[in-house]
Amino acid sequence: MEWTTELRYKPYEEWSAQELLQLQAQAANSQYQMAYHIRPQSGLLNDPNGFSYYNNQWHVFYQSFPFGAAHGLKSWMHLVSDDLVHWRNLGLALAPDTPLDSHGAYSGSAAVIDDKLLLMYTGNVRTKEWERISYQNGAWLDKNGKITKLPKPLIEAPEHVTEHFRDPQLLKYRGEYYVILGAQDKTTLSGKVALFKSKDLEKWQDLGYVDFTDDVMGYMIECPNLVFIDDKPVLIFCPQGLEHEVADYQNIYPNMYVAGEHFKFNAGKLQTQQKAPINLDDGFDVYATQAFNAPDGKAYAISWVGLPDLAYPSDSENWAGCLSQVKVLSLDADGKLIQQPVPAMADLRQAGTVLRPEANYNQRQQLVYQAGKHYELKLNLDANQSGSLHLAANKDASQSLKIDFSTQDHGYVKVDRAHTGISFNEEYGTTRTVNFDQANRLELDIFIDGSLFEIFVNGGRHVITGRFFSQPDNQQIALTSEIALDFTGTYWPLQGI
Amino acid sequence: MEWTTELRYKPYEEWSAQELLQLQAQAANSQYQMAYHIRPQSGLLNDPNGFSYYNNQWHVFYQSFPFGAAHGLKSWMHLVSDDLVHWRNLGLALAPDTPLDSHGAYSGSAAVIDDKLLLMYTGNVRTKEWERISYQNGAWLDKNGKITKLPKPLIEAPEHVTEHFRDPQLLKYRGEYYVILGAQDKTTLSGKVALFKSKDLEKWQDLGYVDFTDDVMGYMIECPNLVFIDDKPVLIFCPQGLEHEVADYQNIYPNMYVAGEHFKFNAGKLQTQQKAPINLDDGFDVYATQAFNAPDGKAYAISWVGLPDLAYPSDSENWAGCLSQVKVLSLDADGKLIQQPVPAMADLRQAGTVLRPEANYNQRQQLVYQAGKHYELKLNLDANQSGSLHLAANKDASQSLKIDFSTQDHGYVKVDRAHTGISFNEEYGTTRTVNFDQANRLELDIFIDGSLFEIFVNGGRHVITGRFFSQPDNQQIALTSEIALDFTGTYWPLQGI
Repeated sequence: MEWTTELRYKPYEEWSAQELLQLQAQAANSQYQMAYHIRPQSGLLNDPNGFSYYNNQWHVFYQSFPFGAAHGLKSWMHLVSDDLVHWRNLGLALAPDTPLDSHGAYSGSAAVIDDKLLLMYTGNVRTKEWERISYQNGAWLDKNGKITKLPKPLIEAPEHVTEHFRDPQLLKYRGEYYVILGAQDKTTLSGKVALFKSKDLEKWQDLGYVDFTDDVMGYMIECPNLVFIDDKPVLIFCPQGLEHEVADYQNIYPNMYVAGEHFKFNAGKLQTQQKAPINLDDGFDVYATQAFNAPDGKAYAISWVGLPDLAYPSDSENWAGCLSQVKVLSLDADGKLIQQPVPAMADLRQAGTVLRPEANYNQRQQLVYQAGKHYELKLNLDANQSGSLHLAANKDASQSLKIDFSTQDHGYVKVDRAHTGISFNEEYGTTRTVNFDQANRLELDIFIDGSLFEIFVNGGRHVITGRFFSQPDNQQIALTSEIALDFTGTYWPLQGI
Repeated sequence: MEWTTELRYKPYEEWSAQELLQLQAQAANSQYQMAYHIRPQSGLLNDPNGFSYYNNQWHVFYQSFPFGAAHGLKSWMHLVSDDLVHWRNLGLALAPDTPLDSHGAYSGSAAVIDDKLLLMYTGNVRTKEWERISYQNGAWLDKNGKITKLPKPLIEAPEHVTEHFRDPQLLKYRGEYYVILGAQDKTTLSGKVALFKSKDLEKWQDLGYVDFTDDVMGYMIECPNLVFIDDKPVLIFCPQGLEHEVADYQNIYPNMYVAGEHFKFNAGKLQTQQKAPINLDDGFDVYATQAFNAPDGKAYAISWVGLPDLAYPSDSENWAGCLSQVKVLSLDADGKLIQQPVPAMADLRQAGTVLRPEANYNQRQQLVYQAGKHYELKLNLDANQSGSLHLAANKDASQSLKIDFSTQDHGYVKVDRAHTGISFNEEYGTTRTVNFDQANRLELDIFIDGSLFEIFVNGGRHVITGRFFSQPDNQQIALTSEIALDFTGTYWPLQGI
C-alpha cells in the first residue's frame, strides 16, 4: 500500500472498524512484538506525550496513527500505571477532530493544575493550500477521565518562527507558567527552543529563545524538555540537521542533552559548562524523549524507540515503534546523566538462572539455550576480559545481536546489529560503540523484549537502545572469546505487562 | 441507541474505526472495569470459546460484539497466557465473514490435532426470510497464529433437531473424534445434548442424544461440556426453561453439572447416581462455562459472568460482560465438584495486610479503610460466629455488597447485592444463599475486581460469583455483628493483568 497524502490524512470515520480490528490483531500477533514495553495497539507509535503523575497514577500518552506504519493523522493514546512498569491502555484520548487540530493532535506535555491535568499539545492544521499552521492547544483531563479541549489555542506562533513550532512543555515555576517549544527561527532557519510565560494560562508573554549554546542547533529542534535533577537543569532535545562538528552522533537525528548549573526562567538562560550537547542514548533508535519532575522528587524519562524518516522491518506488518522503559535520571559528579531502570522492573522477573564460566571452556559458551524473546540478562566482567556476547543467536552464533566488549586497557562496548538475520537502516551504521577512559570492570544490564534491546552499561552511565529483527528461532545466548572469561551473571525471563 | 436487528447485524466494515476507537476508550475508562479478568476491549463479551493448551500456551477466545452492549454480529476474540492468569489479547480471530458464518461466528471449542489447533464453532446464518441455519464449522490455527477456515461445515444439523443446534465441543477418545452439541429436539422441543462421532473429521456419524437424566432439561441446552476428573465424567451445561421442580435455581438460566461414574462414548450414556443437576456456581451470573482436560492432567473451567436476555448497568457505557477467573476442578468423595483458583492467582498479590479482631469491638469493625476496587480477601471464622461482611461499603456500611454468614448450628453464607448503590436484575432475586449441613468453621476467599465478585467458600466447595455496581467512593471493608467475632484474615490489593 502506498501511503499517499490523501490516505494518511483520511479521517478516522472513513476507516472501517473491520480494518482497525484486523490491524490490531496483526500488531498483537507479531513475532516481533514487545511484551513489557508500551507498543502500538495498531499502526504507528511515535513520541511519548503528557508523561505525568496525576490522580494517584502515572500517565503517559503516545502519538498514534492507528492505520498503518506511516506518519498519518495523529492522535494521543492514553495509558496509566501504578508503578511505571505495568501500564493499562485507556485508548484514544485526543483525536484530531476540531478546527484547531484537524490534521493531527501532535506532541505535547501535561501538568497538574489545581485538581486537573492540563494537556498542552500542538494542533497541526493544514490550509487548503496545504500550508501548515501550528496551534499550541490545551485540554483538561479530570479525575473521571473526561477530557475537555479548550476552545482557543493557548499560544499561537509568533512572527519570528516558521511553521515549524511544536511540542510544548508546560512547566510551573514560582507560581507562574512557562512553556518551552521546539522551533525554527524564521530569519536564520536554525533550530531553537522558544520560551513563553503566563500568570493565568490566558495571556502569554514571548520570552524569545532559550540561550543554552553558542553553536547552531541544526535547522530545527523538536521535543525540548527541561527537567531538574538535584536542582540542576537538564535540557533534553532533538536537533535536526546538527553539524557533526558540533557534536558527534550517528543516528539520522540525535536526541541530546545539555546539563547546566542554573536556569534563569525570565532570561531564558541555561548556565552550563558543557562544551557541546551529549547523546542521551548511545544506541540506534532513541528519539523524542520526554522527562518530567515527579512529586516523589525524582526525574523520570521515557522515549520513542524509533526515528523520523526511517523504515523498520515491522512496517510490512503494518505497525511500527514502541516506547522505551521508564528511566530514573540522576547526575554524576561531572554533571553527566545517569539513567537507571525503575525499581518495579524487577517485579517482572520470573525464576532466575545464575550464569557461571564453564569448566572446560573452548572458544564458545552457551549461557542460555532457549532464552525466549522477553528477558533480562545481567553480566559482570572483571578487568582484562574481552570477547563477544551473542543474543538472539542461532546454533553456531553466526547470526546474533552481537555485543563486543573489552575491559583491557581502555575498555569499550560495541553493539553490532548487522548479523541478526534481518538488517535494516544500514546507511546510518550497523554498530554503536561506547568507549571508556579506563575500564577495570564492566556491568551490563540488558533488557530484551521482542525486537527491542536496552543495554544499561555500568549502572546506567550509558544506555544503548535499539531495535533488532532476528529469526524467530534464534534464541540462544552465548559468549565467545579467545580465552576463558571471568564473569558472573543472571538471566531472568520477564513477564509481559 | 435502540439495537434494531439491522444495527445488530450491520457488517463490521460499515462501522467506522472512529466509533470503535471511542468504544474501546469508553470500556477501558469505565470505573466498573475489571483489572485482572478477561473483559471486552469494546462492546459485549459473552461465552468463552476454544479454551485449550496449544503451542506451549494457554488459549481462550471469547464471543464478542465489538460495537455495544448488545447481542449483535459475533466474532471470536483471542487471548493467550503462560499461567492461566496473565492473558495477552491477540484480538480478532474468527470474523463472521463467510457464507457459513455470515450472521455470527458463534461458540465452540478447540482441540489439538497433530501440530495444529482445530477450532470448531457454530456458524450462524440467516436466510433472506430470517430463518436460522446452524453450521458446525472448523478452522485451523497454526503455530504462527494463522487461522484458516474450512471450506465446508464439519457437521450440519440432523433432521431430529430444530434450528437450535450449537456450541460444539470436540473431544478425542481412543483415536476417534466425538462432538457434543447443545440442541433442541424437533419432536419434543426439549433441551438435549447431541453426540456425533468421526474417525477422520470428514464423515460424521449421528449417535443421537446423550443419556444423562430422565428429567426434561427445559426447552434447550446450551454450551454442553464433558470433562473428566480422576476419570469420572462431569457434564456441564446450560438448560434453558428448566422446571424448578427438577432442580432448584434462581438465575434466569442456570449453568449446571451432572457428575457420573462412567461415560460410554459409543452409547452416549453418562452413568450417574446424581438425582438432579447441581448449580455449578451459587451466585448470580455464571453462564456458558467451558471446561477441558489439559495436558497437565488437570481439568480447568472458565465462565462467562453474564446472562442471556438480561441487562447490566454497564450497558449504558456500551460494554458488557467479562470472563470468570480460571478454576481448577476436582471432585470430593461424594462426587461433588470443587472449584479452586489456579496457583498463579497468588502472583497478583501485592503487600498483604493481616486482619485481626479489634480489642474494643462495638457492633462494627473497619477492616480496610480504602480497599480499592481490585483485591483478594481471605477470612477464616471459627464455630459459633455470625455477622455480616461488608465489601465496597460506604462510611456507615449502609451501602455495601453484604455477605451474611453464620457458623452456628447449620451454617450459611448469604450474599446480598441489593444495597450496593446501584441495584439491577432484582426480578431474579437480590440474594444468593449457600446452606451447610453443619458448619463449625467457614473459610472465605473473596476476589473483587471492579464490578465482579468471586467468593470461594470452604476451599471451593461452593463458589458464589456475581456482578455488582457500587458507588465509586465506597471502598471500605467492614464487619458487623452483635458480638465480637473470632476471625483471622488477610487482605491483598491485586495487580492488574
